[in-house]
Amino acid sequence: MRAADWPCGWVLEKLSYAPRDAGLFSTALTHRSVSAANNERLEFLGDAVLNLLIAEHLYRAFPLCSEGDLSRLRSRLVSGESLAQVASALGLGAALHLGSGELKSGGFRRKSILADALEALCGAIFLDGGLEAARQAVEALFAARIAALPEPATLKDAKTRLQEYLQSRGLPLPSYVMERVEGEAHAHTFWVRCEVAALARRAQGSGSTRRSAEQEAAERVLGELEAPLDVAPG
Amino acid sequence: MRAADWPCGWVLEKLSYAPRDAGLFSTALTHRSVSAANNERLEFLGDAVLNLLIAEHLYRAFPLCSEGDLSRLRSRLVSGESLAQVASALGLGAALHLGSGELKSGGFRRKSILADALEALCGAIFLDGGLEAARQAVEALFAARIAALPEPATLKDAKTRLQEYLQSRGLPLPSYVMERVEGEAHAHTFWVRCEVAALARRAQGSGSTRRSAEQEAAERVLGELEAPLDVAPG
Repeated sequence: MRAADWPCGWVLEKLSYAPRDAGLFSTALTHRSVSAANNERLEFLGDAVLNLLIAEHLYRAFPLCSEGDLSRLRSRLVSGESLAQVASALGLGAALHLGSGELKSGGFRRKSILADALEALCGAIFLDGGLEAARQAVEALFAARIAALPEPATLKDAKTRLQEYLQSRGLPLPSYVMERVEGEAHAHTFWVRCEVAALARRAQGSGSTRRSAEQEAAERVLGELEAPLDVAPG
Repeated sequence: MRAADWPCGWVLEKLSYAPRDAGLFSTALTHRSVSAANNERLEFLGDAVLNLLIAEHLYRAFPLCSEGDLSRLRSRLVSGESLAQVASALGLGAALHLGSGELKSGGFRRKSILADALEALCGAIFLDGGLEAARQAVEALFAARIAALPEPATLKDAKTRLQEYLQSRGLPLPSYVMERVEGEAHAHTFWVRCEVAALARRAQGSGSTRRSAEQEAAERVLGELEAPLDVAPG
């Protein structure tokens, strides 16, 4: 069938993708508020498809990057925020099949619903057309964001970014307090609290090293400080 | 080249895989204690390869499973513990290239090193032979574990498993205490402590719902209760 004949045809046409099994794409765009035959399983699969394709792209594009930098670059691309923006740019909100409650409350603009549907769409393309078809779609969807990635050399970890965020606003540095250590030797979990007293923000992080716990705590505080509203353009 | 000619040839022969680029496999088995040209980047990629292939297998094998059950099944298969056991069964410890410090301290038996190398190996096969080659290797590596997966209908979440663990030992039930809620409305993070007083174990979990925070806390307590020693047969 021609992509444009399909109810979500313009979405697939933008991706230059003609589905074999149109039912799969109907499922991918069906929210759980509608039916038991919804996109949650495809989202599970599509999340993994997206993670692999972005990982592969970054692995090839940045041959000198450490795995830590690759991981940070990927996080930027596949964060809920980023996925919701990509979904919005694709116009996915208008193609979603939502229950009446979600429709009334503007679910087609809700970031988590948009991000989940984008993942489900990637899962559907993978099942329908294989990895190469999914690769082409993902490269097209993320081209602008990939091109806008920072130089890996300028990538900074969460503690550094938080410090710079505060310094640029003339605020005092955050404090990190180790709250406790759990578990047996060789399997410790460290719990660290990061506090930005000047902005009344704090968050906790955990990890197998003190440093990784601090990074997680800093990342969470940053997430709160940088978080925009929970609504994306539909 | 014939797989058996290669230093880690017996590993690839067990997988019936003949590499095109042998250097990639040398890198996959080189720990960071040896060289800057180590397996960390391949591990980043291979983790994603493994996650996708296991997700795909489960998606197809369990058409009636919810995404929550699929996710729980996958966690069992790709946990550090599971990967280390698969790596041990493959004899990967003897093929590893470790620095002298790691060699002396028995690094070839360390679970995290084995699990990381297995992921890197999957990454190398994916780059060298494509997704289908990686799929065949992963299906072979995980066949026994996949066959031993519990019936999805019997899958239980962490809170239920913890409760049954304690009941089967005649111990009192765990307590869950919500410690605090962070973040703005619509973006709450709940922090819950799970405590098993009788065994002096406790752990904290966080999540976007109280229930998910409880599950994470219960999972961590279970992890401590079920954790074996940090050494696997080499």
